[in-house]
Amino acid sequence: MGRWQPNAADRLGGAALQLYFEQGFEQTTVAEIADSAGLTARTFFRHFADKREVLFKRSTELQSLLVQAIENAPSSASPIEVVAYALEAAAAMLGSHRSQARQRAAVIASNPELRERDLIKMASLADALTDALLERGVPGHEARLASEVGITVLRVGFTQWISEPKARDLSKILREVLNQLRDVTASK
Amino acid sequence: MGRWQPNAADRLGGAALQLYFEQGFEQTTVAEIADSAGLTARTFFRHFADKREVLFKRSTELQSLLVQAIENAPSSASPIEVVAYALEAAAAMLGSHRSQARQRAAVIASNPELRERDLIKMASLADALTDALLERGVPGHEARLASEVGITVLRVGFTQWISEPKARDLSKILREVLNQLRDVTASK
Repeated sequence: MGRWQPNAADRLGGAALQLYFEQGFEQTTVAEIADSAGLTARTFFRHFADKREVLFKRSTELQSLLVQAIENAPSSASPIEVVAYALEAAAAMLGSHRSQARQRAAVIASNPELRERDLIKMASLADALTDALLERGVPGHEARLASEVGITVLRVGFTQWISEPKARDLSKILREVLNQLRDVTASK
Repeated sequence: MGRWQPNAADRLGGAALQLYFEQGFEQTTVAEIADSAGLTARTFFRHFADKREVLFKRSTELQSLLVQAIENAPSSASPIEVVAYALEAAAAMLGSHRSQARQRAAVIASNPELRERDLIKMASLADALTDALLERGVPGHEARLASEVGITVLRVGFTQWISEPKARDLSKILREVLNQLRDVTASK
């Protein structure tokens, strides 16, 4: 458990991640998680549908945040600039919890069901970003491609961020990866 | 069943797709598929691990084909050019069966488990393309990004191909989408 325990969901989330990482996702029971957080299983199920969902609670928050960033981007911004605003927002939300992010990634990588759910969340995030770009009046194909580029940059950049031996600024890495993607795509 | 029935796997595949499309994936049994193909359930399980796998048999073929196209691309080609060769190969394999592709897409869209498996196959395809690019000596980040771009173009272009009211050349659509992605990414 972390030092910072403002509420039950966060305490349960921290305890779950710790246990999943230390003893394995399959081996951990809801009772253990609740116990470790000093709460009851009943409280657990008030906050999470199942053991998997604990790991994906922030995906929903991330999605709202990125959609909002797209809505709030200057009206003069090109689709890819709008996506860059969304990536800044993602970095602001995700960029300060690298050790948890590493643990979470390790837990997800170790379990096929979790990998599946992660892929589904990413696909749903791409759909949400596309919709938000369409709302701004970006034409269909461009909206889909810009949002797919955004998801690719987020995925590749995030993986790079947690894999590098030393912690670097996530938002800087995302900008680098977006530039690299631009270079790779432009090269003939 | 199609007119062309060279072997049991193809006959079973055709029969399965037809039944899934007409009466639903969940509602179709292996016995019905075998029956409709004039074969036995035992023969079905000699070719496919389960009912889902029938729909993804060609994903494995596609993966081998794309990896081979990457291996065979001219050594002077840039990473994105290599990916363009792979997309040409994909179009050559997929581009002549539009009505089956539409049926298959409809069946997959109707079932969450199938959507999951589809996402996993795509993720594994991206990994295979990345590895093939690494084998050519493309640096890590560039290999990952070029292969992600390829998968995005394939996914978006394929969806466009099956969604358009009139059949157009898939390889032409993939080239268009790659150019669109380049334009979207380059715009400031």
